[in-house]
Amino acid sequence: MSSPELHPLLGALLQGQRRALAKTITLLESQKKAHQQEARVLLQHILPHTGKAFRLGISGTPGVGKSTFIESFGLHLIEQGLKVAVLAVDPSSVLSGGSILADKTRMERLSSHPSAFIRPSPSAGVLGGVALHTREVMLACDAAGFDVILIETVGVGQSETVVSRLTDCFVLLTLPNAGDDLQAVKRGIMEMVDLILINKADLLPEQANLTQAQLEGALKLQQSTAKVMQTSALQNHNIALVWEHLKGLREAHLQDIIAKRQAQQQSWFEEHLHALVWQHFQEQMDPLLYASLQEQARTGKMDPVSAAHLLLEDTHGEKHLPENH
Amino acid sequence: MSSPELHPLLGALLQGQRRALAKTITLLESQKKAHQQEARVLLQHILPHTGKAFRLGISGTPGVGKSTFIESFGLHLIEQGLKVAVLAVDPSSVLSGGSILADKTRMERLSSHPSAFIRPSPSAGVLGGVALHTREVMLACDAAGFDVILIETVGVGQSETVVSRLTDCFVLLTLPNAGDDLQAVKRGIMEMVDLILINKADLLPEQANLTQAQLEGALKLQQSTAKVMQTSALQNHNIALVWEHLKGLREAHLQDIIAKRQAQQQSWFEEHLHALVWQHFQEQMDPLLYASLQEQARTGKMDPVSAAHLLLEDTHGEKHLPENH
Repeated sequence: MSSPELHPLLGALLQGQRRALAKTITLLESQKKAHQQEARVLLQHILPHTGKAFRLGISGTPGVGKSTFIESFGLHLIEQGLKVAVLAVDPSSVLSGGSILADKTRMERLSSHPSAFIRPSPSAGVLGGVALHTREVMLACDAAGFDVILIETVGVGQSETVVSRLTDCFVLLTLPNAGDDLQAVKRGIMEMVDLILINKADLLPEQANLTQAQLEGALKLQQSTAKVMQTSALQNHNIALVWEHLKGLREAHLQDIIAKRQAQQQSWFEEHLHALVWQHFQEQMDPLLYASLQEQARTGKMDPVSAAHLLLEDTHGEKHLPENH
Repeated sequence: MSSPELHPLLGALLQGQRRALAKTITLLESQKKAHQQEARVLLQHILPHTGKAFRLGISGTPGVGKSTFIESFGLHLIEQGLKVAVLAVDPSSVLSGGSILADKTRMERLSSHPSAFIRPSPSAGVLGGVALHTREVMLACDAAGFDVILIETVGVGQSETVVSRLTDCFVLLTLPNAGDDLQAVKRGIMEMVDLILINKADLLPEQANLTQAQLEGALKLQQSTAKVMQTSALQNHNIALVWEHLKGLREAHLQDIIAKRQAQQQSWFEEHLHALVWQHFQEQMDPLLYASLQEQARTGKMDPVSAAHLLLEDTHGEKHLPENH
């Protein structure tokens, strides 16, 4: 089943060797066609060894204390004998150095621990870019024996949706004031959230209580079963309780999580197929004609529907009737 | 330029004949390949005659008084000597009979007026479905001489985004209570809205004032220049003022609107091209293999990336090497 002879990295990866994991990730993220082919074969062999890790999305705007929370939470998991991987989705996240402080400074104890693996976000590439690679990196960490994988996002744009489509549970960090309540609601993530943490709650206990009530009201309105808890990552307050709650969620909803993962795999297939089909078309089409038709459509010289048909016909004409070109 | 001999419908359409407009719309919405080809040619000839109409998106959840507003607003426009077309985007809208009451009952005076044209939403089809057809129907109405085109949406899912990508200005109707404030913010439409109307404001004047202040605060936070007004469509209160404000917006931001329309046309080209490329691929692929690979990806029997590649290769193999099949 494991057939480590199929790729030189596979055996070492499945033993959880960090060097093999790092090399695997480099391969998975490579933009080179030959590497992509190799990565595809490796991924095929990795997949049967995945599924054991608990995949958690962690979201929150800058300033909410995300790196402190990940450090506290990650160290708590390690104390429980678990191995923890931390991945970032967006280029502006804590991990990828959107901030002035480097990762190591921000998560000094976690990042230096042998049971932790911290991977900043990759640069966006072709084929769905960040999301695709994060998924593959997550699977590599899973196969390498990491028990919990934290996927971090600052929640800009569609990144929460991306993370919720990769993970089993979604945790939102917020601050003890009402403004963030609105922000969270606005970003439409109430539907996908499983747990909201009001972090730094010790600093403004009254506001934290008010925010908790508001958030619980908003969740109730949307018939969400998500829970709201107050934490202080800096004081290590309630961190153990957060883990107990998430473990309980996982046990209580195991069948839901399995179904969710199957749906995620089906979406992955469909998204990847769309991306491949579009990439293939782009490789076939005449880029000068594309640019010209785009401009004619923009300025109203040609109707956009006809312009799109023309490009399609030209591209297929080239393939079927090479003498036309 | 007008070349009405190019299509039998074109001349009558440009003269604003309702029968020709209805026939044009039927053709534009047809699912038949031969009709689509004909529609494409007709659209090509329609496009040079479009651009004069003021395109307004109207959104609001059920119960907000959208049909009453559209009736009052539409009749006011007609009193100003303008021709008004009303289109619906979503199947659950007022116009398309998502409600028990039929259109004619809901907008009795407007729907029977010779200067008004009311078109319920089309059923979703291929190629972007509703959005695509609504855009084409809008352009047909524009060419037929309608001065203002109201595009209605109940704002479920992505429909507000769709409407904002079709229109010059976007109007949101809300109710005089804070719950709807949250709903509006949640649905992420603050960024696209140009005017928020607190309708039925006469019923709850105090709450209307509070909601207005809250909405103005939320808009300010997002550096939006959108305005908030109180209306009562039933009492015809502020309807004239709404039109004055929108006319003013249009005059003040004419260059922005032109740029917006050009960007919309470019997006239209790109979206249509994506849809065509995907449709073409679907026609070429083996549907049984697609279903099988999709299921294997879902259940984890094959990794989704390999499954997608396999389908792509099989489909192109069929084309390049017909002896393989």
